[in-house]
Amino acid sequence: MKLSYINNEYFQKLISIEIDPKVKNKLISDMCRINILHMICCAGSGHIGSSFSSIDLMNWVLGEINKNHENLYFFSSKGHDAPALYNSLIAYGKLDFSFLNKLRKIDGLPGHPDVNTPNIFTNTGSLGMGISKSKGIIKANRLKGIKSKVIVLTGDGELQEGQIWESLNRVSQENLNELIIIVDNNKFQSDRSVKITSDLNDLESKFKSFGIETISCNGNDVNEFSKAFETLEKSNKPGILIADTIKGFGVSFMHGDKLEEGEFYQFHSGSISQDVFDSSISELSKRISDLTEKHNLDFKIELSNYETPEISLSSNKKQSLLASYSKSIVSLAEQNEKIVALDGDLILDTGLIEFEKKFPNRFIECGIAEQDMVSQAGSFAKEGFIPIVHSFSSFLTSRPNEQIYNNSTEETKVIYSGFLSGLLPGGPGHSHQAVRDIASMSGIPNLEMIQPNSEKQVEEILKYSISSPHNIYLRFCSIPFTIPENFDELSKLERGVGNTISNGKEICMITYSPTMLSEIVNSKELLLKNNIDPKIISMPWINTFDDNWIKEELSNYHLIVVEDHYIEGGFAEKLSLAILKMGLNIKVDVIGINEIPKSGTNQEVLDHHGLSSKIISEKVIRLTKS
Amino acid sequence: MKLSYINNEYFQKLISIEIDPKVKNKLISDMCRINILHMICCAGSGHIGSSFSSIDLMNWVLGEINKNHENLYFFSSKGHDAPALYNSLIAYGKLDFSFLNKLRKIDGLPGHPDVNTPNIFTNTGSLGMGISKSKGIIKANRLKGIKSKVIVLTGDGELQEGQIWESLNRVSQENLNELIIIVDNNKFQSDRSVKITSDLNDLESKFKSFGIETISCNGNDVNEFSKAFETLEKSNKPGILIADTIKGFGVSFMHGDKLEEGEFYQFHSGSISQDVFDSSISELSKRISDLTEKHNLDFKIELSNYETPEISLSSNKKQSLLASYSKSIVSLAEQNEKIVALDGDLILDTGLIEFEKKFPNRFIECGIAEQDMVSQAGSFAKEGFIPIVHSFSSFLTSRPNEQIYNNSTEETKVIYSGFLSGLLPGGPGHSHQAVRDIASMSGIPNLEMIQPNSEKQVEEILKYSISSPHNIYLRFCSIPFTIPENFDELSKLERGVGNTISNGKEICMITYSPTMLSEIVNSKELLLKNNIDPKIISMPWINTFDDNWIKEELSNYHLIVVEDHYIEGGFAEKLSLAILKMGLNIKVDVIGINEIPKSGTNQEVLDHHGLSSKIISEKVIRLTKS
Repeated sequence: MKLSYINNEYFQKLISIEIDPKVKNKLISDMCRINILHMICCAGSGHIGSSFSSIDLMNWVLGEINKNHENLYFFSSKGHDAPALYNSLIAYGKLDFSFLNKLRKIDGLPGHPDVNTPNIFTNTGSLGMGISKSKGIIKANRLKGIKSKVIVLTGDGELQEGQIWESLNRVSQENLNELIIIVDNNKFQSDRSVKITSDLNDLESKFKSFGIETISCNGNDVNEFSKAFETLEKSNKPGILIADTIKGFGVSFMHGDKLEEGEFYQFHSGSISQDVFDSSISELSKRISDLTEKHNLDFKIELSNYETPEISLSSNKKQSLLASYSKSIVSLAEQNEKIVALDGDLILDTGLIEFEKKFPNRFIECGIAEQDMVSQAGSFAKEGFIPIVHSFSSFLTSRPNEQIYNNSTEETKVIYSGFLSGLLPGGPGHSHQAVRDIASMSGIPNLEMIQPNSEKQVEEILKYSISSPHNIYLRFCSIPFTIPENFDELSKLERGVGNTISNGKEICMITYSPTMLSEIVNSKELLLKNNIDPKIISMPWINTFDDNWIKEELSNYHLIVVEDHYIEGGFAEKLSLAILKMGLNIKVDVIGINEIPKSGTNQEVLDHHGLSSKIISEKVIRLTKS
Repeated sequence: MKLSYINNEYFQKLISIEIDPKVKNKLISDMCRINILHMICCAGSGHIGSSFSSIDLMNWVLGEINKNHENLYFFSSKGHDAPALYNSLIAYGKLDFSFLNKLRKIDGLPGHPDVNTPNIFTNTGSLGMGISKSKGIIKANRLKGIKSKVIVLTGDGELQEGQIWESLNRVSQENLNELIIIVDNNKFQSDRSVKITSDLNDLESKFKSFGIETISCNGNDVNEFSKAFETLEKSNKPGILIADTIKGFGVSFMHGDKLEEGEFYQFHSGSISQDVFDSSISELSKRISDLTEKHNLDFKIELSNYETPEISLSSNKKQSLLASYSKSIVSLAEQNEKIVALDGDLILDTGLIEFEKKFPNRFIECGIAEQDMVSQAGSFAKEGFIPIVHSFSSFLTSRPNEQIYNNSTEETKVIYSGFLSGLLPGGPGHSHQAVRDIASMSGIPNLEMIQPNSEKQVEEILKYSISSPHNIYLRFCSIPFTIPENFDELSKLERGVGNTISNGKEICMITYSPTMLSEIVNSKELLLKNNIDPKIISMPWINTFDDNWIKEELSNYHLIVVEDHYIEGGFAEKLSLAILKMGLNIKVDVIGINEIPKSGTNQEVLDHHGLSSKIISEKVIRLTKS
């Protein structure tokens, strides 16, 4: 892609000019918007809509409010607007300009904020935690005898998370006057409008009922929000600023307020085309130059150019489980009217668009409220339905963890479909990388965990899940991947039994993850060169083992388990106990994750965690020679 | 204890008499109060305060509102008021009278509601799930084309749980007119007043801001609440009834509204003395007879008598970890001013009373809001403090599961102190029995799980935890237990190393749980008679193993792991992987939990799950002879 961006010198020059801070805010914010687009296009993904709705506010906080406080903590609770935050930090010299091209790169800026980046105070990206964290910061500073100011930005969709309302409860009681909460009220969440997804009703009176000072204003109009901040700062009470913003503000055709009711917003996450990039930059550049002219500023920007290697979006011959899931769930629901699907504002990412169209009554939208969703599912199950609960695995297996267990204690049956499972994609970072989902779903009575390894298996496994008496956790990989030759012929679905993909000697490599399987298969060539000829097994059953299969297929091998999951609490532990209960003597080694997942390109992340084919083969060589 | 109760015939007679239903409600409610006290005293524990505040409402719903609906679902979301619910169900013929003496017995009524009891619609006891469940019930019935009415009772302290506010969000949007939410607004929660613990501020306007019809009234005055129900039922909209009640209502000296600010409420849970029982019964009996006289009713009750075996509360020579923890945390906090303690309304059960007194600024009350508590702790850690988070293990390890993980991704250090860990006490039932805590805490990077096995170890382990660079999960047993002879001399704390309590041959029994250790030690006698002489190891380290120790102490034994935890996701899986990674050939068997824990006396529950010394020895005999 042919990109353009604004060089650092222009930001520094503009900041040094003495003009009305409001005009400065407008200029810097549009300049940031150009660099946000540049940054996201370099990365190949990122959240444009909420970065654009919030950048004006962020720049005001970091550029102006910051001047009044020695010890200001500012962070975004939703974290999805990281490209805005990064660019605002860069503009105000709090983050090195060289990071501009390094969003979602391993030596750069994580997809969601992480404390290892300068001036990032806390890890966000998992929604709803920001106000709680602010409270901790304030009280810790009080204990240290230091005066602090904490400004936390939340989304509006994010307000559907229960933790937000937990965290508001003692704010007024404890007189947390150091706190200002900004709501980026841009009216859109991941898929559609907040009003349709889960209406927040009277937001202002909600906040006021917690005894907290609340002001609403236009959050894209510096004249309005600067005054609102002034009022809140003067009040010396904890305060909430409901900033009415427009999602995608700043580029007219990205404005969310132009959509029809129920329409999907196109610029929530993901990159854009060259055309869209060019039109956006031209609109933003024009507004910047119009404004400088209007104020007679000696300030003219020349854009710098940058060409990125074209990111191939083709998934030729690659497996896409999402499409297959989408088709399968509809076809199975046609045959079984007891199937209902519950969604937590991720219909696009969990393949439910078609399902919702065909079965609007059996599609249960819950908003970003996973605990509520899971408990609702429990009741559907109790009433004789087969509820299938959808979300990203990182959230689904942990946020409603107690609710999932509670459902299981009613001895009903619920299916949990988790997407974005495993280490990849690497871009979004550790809040979205589900590498402890197996651990957190362990010890749920009567629950089977299964990971489909091909499009064909998706259908078979979903069919099995629906007819099975067990609770089921389906662990879906959300990125396209290749499968070994003849995989579909070799992989017969049989409970507790793995599929031998290629025969070998002495060493047996086994995994449940399709991306890991692909790396293992790729490692074979190098291994053969080293006289290691591993047997390779694809094992879709994560916590169910057929004893005979273990005996027949695993005995007499040195087993090497490959996991895109933390080793602790993972598959290898479960398989090990199964082996030892049979009294078998098998050496087991595990190649898996030990440290917190990095954000980066998929290859970078695989390499870093030692899970790329090359490093896997090196490890196997070491393990077998030791 | 010498107890008395009202026999079933009086309830049935009163119900059949045609009198003003309001007078009937008053009489039945006081009669239920007598039987609630009887039931709780038979059980030895149970929640009097919230049973008394809510019984009038429950009887109105089950006795009167029920008449207008063919398909009424009524349940308590908090579930702590189960003795009231059970007695109301018994009074109205929906539960057999013979259950009266069987609260918290294995063949009787669980400590918190469970669907295996007739007319219990859903499992509660874990707070905050009830409204979500109601929504699921309503929508499932709609899909079935059946008209339903759902009335759900919540606590007021319970409203601090975030899920409540998640679940309210789409109630009005979806026109869930079948729903009535009753808040038993008795102003007290587990420890102290709601106002002090975590003030709910303007509750009525909170609910109204969700677009839900809300009425407040006196919830112990049938004249008031009967009218309020009528209004809500007529409105044909989802409705909320804020029932202002008095905790302990009905027995004057139990009334919560008489307490000074900050005072602990004495009748939240637990049993009462003979004196308290007698005075209560006499006050209740007098009011019943006064009321029947006033209305000239031909209705005179004679109480039946029942004598229970005295429940021994002595814990002579028994270890009490709570007292030891209480002392240790204060003494360590005196030496280290970085220590802060966070509490989720369980100060009495987590031993923090003294800590709060000594270090009021370093004691952080969070209310019943575990997610908020854990994220606050994360910030304290990030600011250089050593936060120790307290709750029951069943809640602490699951409700804020994602928040715990998020903290760990900041590479700070937090200590999680979980109480009521393991299968015992058996009384409260599966919502409170933490038997999957090890699983849900697995895969948290850099987290060590440790279980103290004696009072002395509490101090040592807490000391270790504070100085260790790791996150720590402390798994505390909350019931008194005996330790093996010379245990304190034999148990040296060394990272990853177990303590051999008694030597043996061929068989090695190992556990991390002090109650299991005590059962194992008791099983030895029977085993010796069968020529089995097991080595016994107490292993406080749940997920940390010293390889040399494994090699030296476990090799050449048939290992039998005993767990008061689900086998899946437990200690045996972790130890098995450690063994196989070393290439050792050890046979492993596990005696642990496979099914959902039963509620009952401790001995009943141990027997049922095969974890009493007798059954353990039988299992070991079978396992070693096979």
